[in-house]
Amino acid sequence: MRAAVMRGPNNLVVDDVPEPKPGPGQILVKTIACGICGSDLHFLKFAEQMVQVGQELGPIGTSGLDLGRDIVMGHEFSAEVLDFGPDTQGAVGVGDSVVSIPVMLTGSSDPNNMIEPIGAYSNTYGGGYAEYMVLAAPLALKIPDGCDPRHAALTEPMAVGLHAVNRSGIKAGEAAVVLGAGPVGLAVISALRRLDVEPIVAADFSPARRKLALTMGAHEAVDPREEPAVEAWRRVDGVKPVVIFEAVGVPGMLDQAMKDAPRMARVLVVGVCMENDTVRPIIGIGKELEIRFALGYDPFEFASTLNAIASEEIDVRPLITGEVGIEGVPQAFTDLANPDDHCKILVTP
Amino acid sequence: MRAAVMRGPNNLVVDDVPEPKPGPGQILVKTIACGICGSDLHFLKFAEQMVQVGQELGPIGTSGLDLGRDIVMGHEFSAEVLDFGPDTQGAVGVGDSVVSIPVMLTGSSDPNNMIEPIGAYSNTYGGGYAEYMVLAAPLALKIPDGCDPRHAALTEPMAVGLHAVNRSGIKAGEAAVVLGAGPVGLAVISALRRLDVEPIVAADFSPARRKLALTMGAHEAVDPREEPAVEAWRRVDGVKPVVIFEAVGVPGMLDQAMKDAPRMARVLVVGVCMENDTVRPIIGIGKELEIRFALGYDPFEFASTLNAIASEEIDVRPLITGEVGIEGVPQAFTDLANPDDHCKILVTP
Repeated sequence: MRAAVMRGPNNLVVDDVPEPKPGPGQILVKTIACGICGSDLHFLKFAEQMVQVGQELGPIGTSGLDLGRDIVMGHEFSAEVLDFGPDTQGAVGVGDSVVSIPVMLTGSSDPNNMIEPIGAYSNTYGGGYAEYMVLAAPLALKIPDGCDPRHAALTEPMAVGLHAVNRSGIKAGEAAVVLGAGPVGLAVISALRRLDVEPIVAADFSPARRKLALTMGAHEAVDPREEPAVEAWRRVDGVKPVVIFEAVGVPGMLDQAMKDAPRMARVLVVGVCMENDTVRPIIGIGKELEIRFALGYDPFEFASTLNAIASEEIDVRPLITGEVGIEGVPQAFTDLANPDDHCKILVTP
Repeated sequence: MRAAVMRGPNNLVVDDVPEPKPGPGQILVKTIACGICGSDLHFLKFAEQMVQVGQELGPIGTSGLDLGRDIVMGHEFSAEVLDFGPDTQGAVGVGDSVVSIPVMLTGSSDPNNMIEPIGAYSNTYGGGYAEYMVLAAPLALKIPDGCDPRHAALTEPMAVGLHAVNRSGIKAGEAAVVLGAGPVGLAVISALRRLDVEPIVAADFSPARRKLALTMGAHEAVDPREEPAVEAWRRVDGVKPVVIFEAVGVPGMLDQAMKDAPRMARVLVVGVCMENDTVRPIIGIGKELEIRFALGYDPFEFASTLNAIASEEIDVRPLITGEVGIEGVPQAFTDLANPDDHCKILVTP
């Protein structure tokens, strides 16, 4: 089958690779659509550092990964069920369109080895930048009738936003500042709006991204070079408890968020910064700040996000700015570097 | 009156200074005892940086401070009431022994200027390294009969520990790791023990400090060069939710705490690190950590700590390792550099 294959850091090529075969408990699926995630761009660039961090984080990280072998990324997918592995049943049937959390159940009872990633950080389970994948039968969720599977492919990134919002502990009626209106920031904005957080103040350098922020539910979107986000929040509100969502993930953002935060504020870090960052603990102490880090989502957040997309409570269409075949994946990785041109590019093999 | 006076960074001298006069709403007191706080050592060394940070933090910081003028530090005091300012009443009377939160009420209704510090960060309100002070009449708390005012002087540092524990959200039956068993770490340990946190695992390089940690309520005290604190927690517990208290306050501790923390752990930072620190956000994200910073205490925490010392629920005697007159303050600052010799030195003018 055709696949966009990562062969070592900074090397993404399109090639023929063996088709996967479903084992017990697994289903074979044909990829319908797969979003390109910023973390894949990060991984292509920082693979070695990420493997090193994975080793520090322990077994659920990237510790088992061999960068010398092929990796097929793509973890934001929808797919059609083609076949079942031996002795396998599931709530979905052949021909169903499904989404799934991108993890494989290994059958191990060792809590450190119960799951393995699909579509990144794995040499075994390739993701949606290929024609076919194997998924864990029990984790596949049928896409509700009437929902475009290309839209359902955004379940995964939108669930990241919901989880970040849940983890932040923010409540309806409180205020939020969202630093960065890339796909993660926009998913956060969408989840905040559904929770009736008001105002939601977004900041991004890109005019296109600021427009998307307003479309997805932000009440205010500013260029931080003209007006820092926290100042914009002071202008439009300034009194409610505020949570600052850091959805940029480059060095300096955490220190900046801590510096700008009002006293007793909470900072939720969901932007993945791979590099070292310098902070001043005295700033955190002086304002009694709280910093929470968020990663991923749980199965309930994932399922509820799918249903919200299907019911059009979340309209993901404005986020989809491009569509490419597998041959177009390397170029799409390049194109995504320009935030004014693109938000989410779908790979539709 | 005699006072230990800070005259610019790294310059602490004993000299005669004018006696303060109580204004309206103020009382004149005679210092009975005043603990030397690590933050005073910090301030003597890092005064310029602290003023700069104070300017960033805004009006409640050190922004009004002039390092070119005399500063009399000392904010952990007990004192005897000598006189009342004009038109001043209070719940305490002449001859009473009192403690107080080290802030002056200014009478301003501007929330940024309602209070001013006493005994540090102020050129106006000197602290307990002098024979006399003025305090805010409404904030003075009478020391309960039978309680040694020298012990009551430890209300302030012990309240810092209670506040850090409250702010951490830790609950009875959960586990705690305390990095650093200086006065702040020991106050944290004492508050954790009163809350029935178990186990409490302390770490400190100094054998004397480790012994004090056990005395104040730690279940285990380790030398981190021999066994890292989190490993010791894994050995004696390893399953309960755990909060890591960072009570050292030197660069590198925050990154180390994040690296050692188990998944979903909370890190409570109460050690005041004045310098930049480098962290790796990806470690926080990969483990979904939470970092809370704590500063000071509220008036209720302060009063309840006074009562706990008076009722001997908290036995502060093991913490007091020395006593000096005002002439001995500069030498005591030097002596406190060695953690094996000293924990808390009281200044008793």
